[in-house]
Amino acid sequence: MSKHVAIMGATGAVGQELLSLLEERNFPIASLKLLASKRSAGKTCQFKGQDITIEELTHDSFEGIDIVLASAGGSISAEFAPSAIKAGAVVVDNTSYFRMNDDVPLVVPEINSEEIKNHKGVIANPNCTTAIAAVVLWPLHKAYGLKKVIMSTYQASSGAGATGMEELRSGATAYLEGKEVKNETFAHPLPFNLIPHIDKFQENGYTKEEMKVTWETRKIMDLPDLAVSCTAVRIPTFRAHAESIVIETEKPIDVAWAKKILSEAPGVKLVDNIDNNEYPMPLNVTKKWDVEVGRIRQNLVFGENGLEFFICGDQILKGAALNAIQIAEELI
Amino acid sequence: MSKHVAIMGATGAVGQELLSLLEERNFPIASLKLLASKRSAGKTCQFKGQDITIEELTHDSFEGIDIVLASAGGSISAEFAPSAIKAGAVVVDNTSYFRMNDDVPLVVPEINSEEIKNHKGVIANPNCTTAIAAVVLWPLHKAYGLKKVIMSTYQASSGAGATGMEELRSGATAYLEGKEVKNETFAHPLPFNLIPHIDKFQENGYTKEEMKVTWETRKIMDLPDLAVSCTAVRIPTFRAHAESIVIETEKPIDVAWAKKILSEAPGVKLVDNIDNNEYPMPLNVTKKWDVEVGRIRQNLVFGENGLEFFICGDQILKGAALNAIQIAEELI
Repeated sequence: MSKHVAIMGATGAVGQELLSLLEERNFPIASLKLLASKRSAGKTCQFKGQDITIEELTHDSFEGIDIVLASAGGSISAEFAPSAIKAGAVVVDNTSYFRMNDDVPLVVPEINSEEIKNHKGVIANPNCTTAIAAVVLWPLHKAYGLKKVIMSTYQASSGAGATGMEELRSGATAYLEGKEVKNETFAHPLPFNLIPHIDKFQENGYTKEEMKVTWETRKIMDLPDLAVSCTAVRIPTFRAHAESIVIETEKPIDVAWAKKILSEAPGVKLVDNIDNNEYPMPLNVTKKWDVEVGRIRQNLVFGENGLEFFICGDQILKGAALNAIQIAEELI
Repeated sequence: MSKHVAIMGATGAVGQELLSLLEERNFPIASLKLLASKRSAGKTCQFKGQDITIEELTHDSFEGIDIVLASAGGSISAEFAPSAIKAGAVVVDNTSYFRMNDDVPLVVPEINSEEIKNHKGVIANPNCTTAIAAVVLWPLHKAYGLKKVIMSTYQASSGAGATGMEELRSGATAYLEGKEVKNETFAHPLPFNLIPHIDKFQENGYTKEEMKVTWETRKIMDLPDLAVSCTAVRIPTFRAHAESIVIETEKPIDVAWAKKILSEAPGVKLVDNIDNNEYPMPLNVTKKWDVEVGRIRQNLVFGENGLEFFICGDQILKGAALNAIQIAEELI
């Protein structure tokens, strides 16, 4: 049962979480290889109390490997996945490169784990914003039938990796000291500001981040015509994305019953006690495996066929590393 | 033409902006009285280069006053507005106390200035979130007919006044120094977090802030059945609220034409050049009179009858003080 596993991009924010999760979830490991750029080769990472030396990623890195967990960027996955597949490995890819390929299953295990068996060497992990929403939307779809999904996001600096978080930290410090706030990772200064622009603009005026929510939600749920729109906004938080979501459904929704459904849904935690000021917030969700959902109420626009709610999830975990590990667990 | 004006709540964040705006817009002032609590009485404020001594607010404060600009809180307006009216003054009220009274016009001058003449002593200024959205929604309604409005907000700490801004500043400093973040004004720590909860929860699960958007938008636009929903979220910015808005309209929308309409709408500034990373952001809107709108695109859920956009406005100005001064200007 134990597997020979390699992590591609082991030094990144997601790579480090992959390493932690393999240990925390006691994944059956026969051997673990950490792959990164030449710059990081020779450094070590701890795994189960032992130092593992990072190796330079090459096309020969995959001999004897069963599962590759890839999170080194789309161009790296594009270049090295074929070599991994040729060596007999299955690639669980965190990048967007293969996601919309018809040949590649795009999987959130709570929703469509049966797709995993159809892989041809690559299984794709969805965009973080999509994955977080999907685990909450799916049980509602099964109960009521989704017709429309309208989403606005509140995304953390960690969506741009460790450098994004550092730019927020150093920029906020500079701002509070009355100094100039510099920005390189983000298009504008993020501290005490927001930026309604994540990833590249598309011809239809949406950003690629926003379109990923539409495209990937449809593919994961196998609802090719589902009406989904998103406005994606970067806000000055460090970690964990939040999303304000309004849905219209085929069937009328009983709010109390919807709460019961969500309280029992896998990967979801109901945090919805307004009498006690309890609702999802980034501060509480950081490092948590479950996506939190709260502020659940009948939507005033769609009436009894509408629901409005607020979700929050750690996008490095369910939005990336955790979902990838869950796929790997299903593989074995 | 010159008027005898009194400011109730002169020392607050809105009161201070009222004072600045009276000067900047060269409001025709015969005399200016600054009223505040006993605690502030005796202090001075500058107006047109002169010191004005703040007086304690009493029921006898209004003799000879023509216009009272009130922003000292709902209970203060409730108690003192009748005395002001009895003394012959008109009260332009920034609080929520009178807004939904059938007898009281609720006015955004760009939309319904003709309502001002129907006043019976009080004219109400809308909630900040509502006012900012309304100046953008109104020209779209006139052109296309609003059917549905779905909004998610990104609201600044200044919505809770000067103490809210100070709590964010001191809390962010503490956070960055690794110290404990304290919260008194907000229900939870705000720095590097968000709080999906502004004002009290209502029986239907929405907050009062969210319901104000529904109630007040309908009243200002005289569209009592308009479908409006809002999720109101506090984020760690200092000043200027942002809002992600999706609308469905009676008539199909040509996006280029909608942009032209908004570029010519009073109180609105079109900031929508995605090729140059230009869109509304709190950092740019602070202290500006106009509400900025950008990210304008056909909404994917409502198709050609749908529009999606992002707005940002200084809620102490158009959301409060500026709108009140505009009402006072219309009065004379």
